[in-house]
This record gives sequence, C-alpha cells and structure tokens, in this order.
Amino acid sequence: MRIINLDQISSKPLLPEVKAAMIDAINSDYANPSSQHKSGEQAAEAMDRARESVAGLLNAAAPKEIVFTSGGTESVNHAIKGVAMANEKKGKHVVISNIEHNAVIRSVRRLKSAGYHITSVSVDEHGRVNPQEVADAITDETVLVSIMHSNNETGTIQPIREIADITRQKKVIFHTDAVDSIGVVPFDVQEMGADLVSFAANTFYGPTGMGGLYVRRGTRIFPLLDGGIQENGKRAGAENLIGIIGMGAAADAARRNMDKWYAHCSGLKEKLLAELPDYIDEYIINTNPDHSLPNLLSVSIQYIEGESVMLMLDDDDIAVSTRSACATGSLRASHVLISIGLSHADAQGTLVLSYGIDTTEEDITAFLTSLKNIVTTLRNISPLYQKVSQS
Amino acid sequence: MRIINLDQISSKPLLPEVKAAMIDAINSDYANPSSQHKSGEQAAEAMDRARESVAGLLNAAAPKEIVFTSGGTESVNHAIKGVAMANEKKGKHVVISNIEHNAVIRSVRRLKSAGYHITSVSVDEHGRVNPQEVADAITDETVLVSIMHSNNETGTIQPIREIADITRQKKVIFHTDAVDSIGVVPFDVQEMGADLVSFAANTFYGPTGMGGLYVRRGTRIFPLLDGGIQENGKRAGAENLIGIIGMGAAADAARRNMDKWYAHCSGLKEKLLAELPDYIDEYIINTNPDHSLPNLLSVSIQYIEGESVMLMLDDDDIAVSTRSACATGSLRASHVLISIGLSHADAQGTLVLSYGIDTTEEDITAFLTSLKNIVTTLRNISPLYQKVSQS
Repeated sequence: MRIINLDQISSKPLLPEVKAAMIDAINSDYANPSSQHKSGEQAAEAMDRARESVAGLLNAAAPKEIVFTSGGTESVNHAIKGVAMANEKKGKHVVISNIEHNAVIRSVRRLKSAGYHITSVSVDEHGRVNPQEVADAITDETVLVSIMHSNNETGTIQPIREIADITRQKKVIFHTDAVDSIGVVPFDVQEMGADLVSFAANTFYGPTGMGGLYVRRGTRIFPLLDGGIQENGKRAGAENLIGIIGMGAAADAARRNMDKWYAHCSGLKEKLLAELPDYIDEYIINTNPDHSLPNLLSVSIQYIEGESVMLMLDDDDIAVSTRSACATGSLRASHVLISIGLSHADAQGTLVLSYGIDTTEEDITAFLTSLKNIVTTLRNISPLYQKVSQS
Repeated sequence: MRIINLDQISSKPLLPEVKAAMIDAINSDYANPSSQHKSGEQAAEAMDRARESVAGLLNAAAPKEIVFTSGGTESVNHAIKGVAMANEKKGKHVVISNIEHNAVIRSVRRLKSAGYHITSVSVDEHGRVNPQEVADAITDETVLVSIMHSNNETGTIQPIREIADITRQKKVIFHTDAVDSIGVVPFDVQEMGADLVSFAANTFYGPTGMGGLYVRRGTRIFPLLDGGIQENGKRAGAENLIGIIGMGAAADAARRNMDKWYAHCSGLKEKLLAELPDYIDEYIINTNPDHSLPNLLSVSIQYIEGESVMLMLDDDDIAVSTRSACATGSLRASHVLISIGLSHADAQGTLVLSYGIDTTEEDITAFLTSLKNIVTTLRNISPLYQKVSQS
C-alpha cells in the first residue's frame, strides 16, 4: 500500500544514495574517529568527508564551522542556551519572533526562568517579521537574536539577510532556525550573514535524529553537551557516525539537485494553488505568495476542523498534517496561525501540505479529489456552515 | 588486515543482528513515530518494541522510564543539569566523586558557574568510594548525588546499592553513570535503587551516538532538549529511529547472552592477570580485584610512557588506549589514576586494555608477546630505568 505522503515536514524518505551510504557505514565496522591509533583513521576520514559535504551545502568558510548534532532541536537548544550562557556578562536579553518553533520558544522559556528577558517581535498578516522591529527590540543587554528562516507551518521565509545586517551593526549574535530551509532552498551562510544556523538532515532526505549547527568562526558559545572534546570542543559525546555519513551523502545530493528539486516542488505548489478553486471554496492561503518554501502550502479551510480532514484523508491513504509534527498532542490553536491574524475557528481548519521529490502531479490530483469529497461531507454536517451558506 | 581491538572502551563492533536490524530499519522507510496518521504507526510500534527491549535489559518497572538519547554524554548532561535546574528551589548542592567521567565533571563545572556548590568525594587506593563519605557530604541543600557505576579507566565498580540506600533515606536524587556497565554486567534498576541511570548502546555492541537515560517514575527532572513533546515530554526532537532500533536489538542480545559474554571476558581477564608476569615485570594493576568489570584491565607499566607503547602496539596492529577515548587530545595525567594514588610517572605508563566477545585467547597472547618486546625496547632507552635497574 503506497501512502501519498503530503506530510513531509514530519518525515521525508531517505534517498537511495543515503541508504546505500548508511548501509555501507554499518558494514564498514568503523572504529571511534577520536581514537589515537590507526583503526580510528578511516572513521575520522569518513567524518571529515561528511563535514566537507555539509559545509559545501551551506557554503561555510571552513568545515570546522559545522557542528554535528542529534537534530534540529538539539541545534536550536545549543544555539540559544549556549550563546546565552557564554555571554551573560554582557546581558540577559534575547529577541525572538512570535512564530518560532517550540524548540526556540521553550528554550527561551527556560532562559526566562533563569532571569533572562525575552522580547518577541510580531509578524505581519503575510507572516513576515519587520527587520526594523528587530532593530528596535535590541538593547545594550541583548546577547542573541533568534529568528527562523522559514516557518514549519506556513512555509513563509523571513528577511534573514536584512536582520543579519542589523545584528552585525549592533554587534549582537544572530541565530536562525533554518531546519525547514537548508537543503530545500539555496542558503549561503556567508551571504546570509547569520552567525548560527540550525539545520536537520531529514529535510534533505537524510536520516532523522541527525542535524547540525553552523557556528561562524569567532562566535562565543558554550557547549550544550559537556564532556569530551569532540566536534572541535563544541559538542561532547561519541559521534553517530552512521548518521553523519548519511547526512553527508544527503548534503551532496541536495547540493547537486537543488535546482531540479526546487523546480519540481514549485511546480506542485503552483498546481495546488491553481486547481484548489476547482475543488473547494471558502479557504485561506496562509503561505506568503512571494517569500516561501517551494515544498509547503498552508491552507485554512473554513467551517470544518483540520483534524477531521486529516483523519478522513488518512482513510484514503493520504497523509497530511494539521500542525507541527513536533507539537502533536497539543490541542491548542497554533500560535503561528494566530500570530498571522487567523481566527481560532479558521486556524482549526488548517492543513499543512508538504511534499517532495517523490510526489507526483497524480498524487496532487488524488489529494484534491479526496479533499473535495471530505470537505463536502464535513460541511454537510456542520451547523455553522449550514447557517452561513443559507444566510 | 585484522586489527586486534583491545580498545573496546573506545569502540565496539556492531553485532550481526544489530547490523541486520538497522539495515532493515533503513529499508523500511519508517515515517515519524509522532505522526497522527497511520503511516506513523509502524514507526511508533518499532520504537515501542525497542523501548521494551531496553527496559528489559535494565529491568525497569515500565518502558516509559527509558528516555532515548544521543549517547552516554547526553544522558549524563541531561541527568545532572536537568535535576539541578528542576530542584534548585530546594538547594544548589551536588555531590560527585573524584573519578567521574568528564561528562559529569564538566557538567557540574557548568553548574558551578551558575552558583551551585559541588562536593567531590575521594576514592580509596582500590578506587572505591566510601558510602559513608557520600552520606557525610549530603546537606539540606543537596539536590543530586552522581556517582558512576564503573570507571572507564580502571573498570572498578562502585557500591551503588549502598549509596542508593543513603540517598533514599535522605531523600536526595541519585544518578549513576553506568555507561560502561549496562550490557556488560547485570544491572537491575529496581534492585540497584538509583533514580537515574545513564547508558550507551555501543557498550553492548549497539550503534555509537545512541544511548538512554533511565528515569525512575516520579523523579523531578527538566528536559535538556526543549521543544516538542517526544519521549514522554522528557526529550524533544525527532527520534533517531534507526539508532533506536539498533539499540533495541543490541539490548535483546545483551540480555540473552549476558552470562556467556561475562564468562568469556572474565576468562580473558584471568588470562591477562595470570600471564602478565611471564612477559613483563614492574607494573601495577589499577583494577579492583573483587569489584570490577570483566572486560577491562588497567595496568601501569613502570619506567615507560603509555603513549609510546600504544603507538608501537599500533604498528603491530594492536589497538589499546592510554586514557579515556573521550579525553583524547589532553596530555595531563588522568585524574582517575591520580585519585587512586598513582604517581604522575606511573600514571604515564598506564594501558587500558578493553576487550570483548570477539577477542580470542590468541589475541591476548599476541598482545603479551608484542608488549614484552616493546617494553624491553623502551626500557633499554630509558635513562630512569637504567638508573633504577643498576641500583
């Protein structure tokens, strides 16, 4: 049974070359890359190659600016807590935005209980931060600005380069959570100007539970994991070499295929946007038309509940998400959707459609066909919809 | 070229069944186990099975007491920082021992700079903590005692059950770093009584960069990684399911083969201890004769440097360690060896021999033969040895 996976923000398949690289790593019986004797040499070389591949994807000035982590969440926690702790003599103020991922929100909440002050800037109705608001929020006490590159619920992309210009001028460290961007859209760390960039391998068809943190040379940051001196002293612990090798293979593929993958996903997004009106009405597109990921579309369908749509699509073997995969289990309306000005009712009817290189035009058509039937069924049993449509 | 790996504390090979389970996981295209739709179900089931296997190895009262982590270092950081932060209203005092791993030492150093007080208890000449000293160190302000189960440089095992009796009576949370014990020696968390137990998959022939933290139900602890609600709210971040499945397979194998593996390693240790005098003289055994791991022997060879021995053994395709793999790059004498009363000179000549189920008696003989030649060569060029042997 093939399931049409339109919830790729939650999980993407591994590329065949990633699988092959990981299986080869498993069968290679690598020793510890930190070993002083020669059995560790091959492991160290394999790790170096993967680091170069990842550095290449981000156009880092040097491979050692890449710190391997256990995923996007660890990268974000490391960036926020590591910078705050390392710079607390300067001050205890951090600036974020209202639409950050829970990894950012809950990391700064942890800082808050340790006496830090947090300023959270708003976004406009198109879901974007105004760089001037960031500039205004920065004080002499500010040690960190953390604004995500793309949002995991709307796909909207923030003006990161403009914000980096401000933080540089004001000499404040700037972190961007680019977990849903790196490997999907071109991202050149030297051009973007952020000091710290969080990313995750699964976004570009690498293994889940594997990620990285770009740390610009000279950025003052403490480790989150203390102990040994792995990762250039920035992250202790014996390395997940099989995962690292998988991420390296995925980074190579992402760099090589970026344009092709981008075009494929953009085409599917255009098809969705163009054909949605033929299947359903009364919906809101939450994704910014000009600044957004090619592989994600957020649509709020009015007068119905997203959870019901998700479950009924699931019966038709189509996977979608109604909110961040990481927030599963929470029943509150998404803080992201409320921040861009949606009503609670409209937020409830939100589907996050995320797709990838294995998604076909036929998949989109099958989804739209199924969606039409489901929306009709659900609206027929909705007293609210009956009232509105009869008025 | 087969290398004789007597540095298994640094890295152990994957079991064939672990490799098979991980390769199967790679080819299974699992979705995100936290997904709400059915494509995540198989992933969630696979994760549940692995958690049950690991819980079984530790005899945890419930699988949800197991938190999957990216390895022993993360587990230790989580236990120490998570308990300290969650209980700081009670006090800011932590008790450790002088022979802890760097993950513990550097985690409490981080707490120290946040205003915590640390008491470090000593060990006797056999490398053991006196439980009474731990009892005496505990004050009304103490929120955590962290004493390792077995030491990674000497293999000496601590009286954990006796310490747990004390911490329970005094109502203080007790963490034990059992990274080098779990899967090697029987460890029943219900019998041992520790509230938190750190462990790593590679110790029992599972994947490196994969570990766990046992958290006894009711133990007050904050997450180290904040964000989503994975791992029962204790550890955010999309899971390394391939690694988790590998650890589950390794845990099953360790439980099934514990007695056989123990007997095999004990036999090699006895052979080493019995035959060493036939090959070299003037050495000190640092491993406790009665309370120690079966798979590790620490020997300090006088009048020579361990690093030279390691390099020359490497030329003979034999891998050994002179200190903790995690401490590679540091040139200071080991704090563990100094703590058990070795002189700096003797500490310099220390070899940590760690072996496993793939190590044969022939490997031990080959090592001893090679060692004899190397020690003779090195002592012949040692002015100190010449002076001592002529006096």
